Amino acid sequence: MRSWSFAKGHGTQNDFVLLVDPDGSLDLGADEVRWLCDRRAGVGGDGVLRAVRAAAVDDWQGDGALWFMDYRNADGSVAEMCGNGVRVFAHHLLAEGLLSGRRFDIATRAGVRPVEVLDGARYRVEMGPVRVEPGAVTVTAATGEGERSWPATAVDVGNPHAVVLLGPADPQLASLELHVAPRWRPADVFPEGVNVEFVRSVGERHLQMRVHERGSGETRSCGTGTVAAVAASARSVGAAVGTWRVDVPGGTVEVELAEGTSYLTGPAEVVAHGQVLLPTG
Amino acid sequence: MRSWSFAKGHGTQNDFVLLVDPDGSLDLGADEVRWLCDRRAGVGGDGVLRAVRAAAVDDWQGDGALWFMDYRNADGSVAEMCGNGVRVFAHHLLAEGLLSGRRFDIATRAGVRPVEVLDGARYRVEMGPVRVEPGAVTVTAATGEGERSWPATAVDVGNPHAVVLLGPADPQLASLELHVAPRWRPADVFPEGVNVEFVRSVGERHLQMRVHERGSGETRSCGTGTVAAVAASARSVGAAVGTWRVDVPGGTVEVELAEGTSYLTGPAEVVAHGQVLLPTG
Repeated sequence: MRSWSFAKGHGTQNDFVLLVDPDGSLDLGADEVRWLCDRRAGVGGDGVLRAVRAAAVDDWQGDGALWFMDYRNADGSVAEMCGNGVRVFAHHLLAEGLLSGRRFDIATRAGVRPVEVLDGARYRVEMGPVRVEPGAVTVTAATGEGERSWPATAVDVGNPHAVVLLGPADPQLASLELHVAPRWRPADVFPEGVNVEFVRSVGERHLQMRVHERGSGETRSCGTGTVAAVAASARSVGAAVGTWRVDVPGGTVEVELAEGTSYLTGPAEVVAHGQVLLPTG
Repeated sequence: MRSWSFAKGHGTQNDFVLLVDPDGSLDLGADEVRWLCDRRAGVGGDGVLRAVRAAAVDDWQGDGALWFMDYRNADGSVAEMCGNGVRVFAHHLLAEGLLSGRRFDIATRAGVRPVEVLDGARYRVEMGPVRVEPGAVTVTAATGEGERSWPATAVDVGNPHAVVLLGPADPQLASLELHVAPRWRPADVFPEGVNVEFVRSVGERHLQMRVHERGSGETRSCGTGTVAAVAASARSVGAAVGTWRVDVPGGTVEVELAEGTSYLTGPAEVVAHGQVLLPTG
């Protein structure tokens, strides 16, 4: 039996197992991640967020004094970034006294993410540039009335997204059956998989969204997904900058598109902490 | 913020949030149970197991020195008994030094359950009488090829079950879509809902099973459900006593049918413990 200190937290119900491991010494392989994220046999989460001092991260070229967010998907795979995760990560490190101040940087595999602490346990994270990709993509998903296909917009937010903008004649978001993974064509356009967002406009700069994340299945929120959804929606109405509201099943976030960058603002919570008892490997 | 001590554990991946509350003073209402069992916003579990000294339980008529297992379903409802839960409950109280010995009784809403501690963190729990009910019941469930209906056997194990014995010509267990709740007819035969088991015989006294639990949805195991499955299967082959193996998605248990009573044997694990931080009500 291995006993590790852990916490569990979420941002708009995108939930994570948090590990603080300053010198990167925890033996966190894919098996451990899958077990930690298993909602019945383990603790449960959409992913694991491990806090390591950047100086202890082999490939890190920048400031070694930063905290590096080592993010893993529930299936054990390594991922670049997680927008909701950065908020939860920052919230936990602040609560543990490992970070301080109202503004600081977090190191991630997608680069440095500046974070601003707002009142009421809300956090504003700079997400960097958003790139709407050219080219036609088709997404197919299950609905209550069988399979449907839609044109989608490919968006890069440091990780890949395919955004489907649903119109008035399309099925309701609630009728999508996202326990079945959506498919896409051409098959080779997302060689490392893709997060798929289904988006409906419900007002001026106000979206509703559901998301299927590669490696995790449907989640109640995906931070980079909300940024991608806003980028695709903004382009469809000819806008380039501005602040949008996005309602996801787990809550509400705000996305700000600016010149050459973007910001994601939302809440973060830690709901439990203690010791996790991993099976002996 | 309210901070409670908690643990998370499972028996064949039927998982629970465990609370130790000797004098029954925790304010554990339906809202708290739903939040604790919420797999994204809270800790996550198929139910909550609260350990209260029986003397502190209003309706308890028996030995006040026993530990009473206050079991709640994930939807906040009160339930009589949980066969996998008793093992996890006993395992946790032993680990915490609140129980000792190889044999002891646990108080539940369905009466006293004698427990025997076996080697390797396995527990044998006396489940009491099993009653196969007369009368025809029909269960309807979703499969990969649309809805199907089958005759089912109603079984009472202190809580109600409807057992479908699948034959060679029936769909595979894996093709059942149990994220959709099965229905039953006549509609009034289970006024308080029912747990539905789908069972396939894979050898002599060897079953495979999937289960949809009222109040929880599909779970990876249901202890009383395995007893009900064995009782219905035994009757279908003219057997009354004997030991059966039941494979569920979360592992394997053994069910022994004896004269006037039954026993359930299986593993138990505690995977985490610490403090849970409930939102202020």
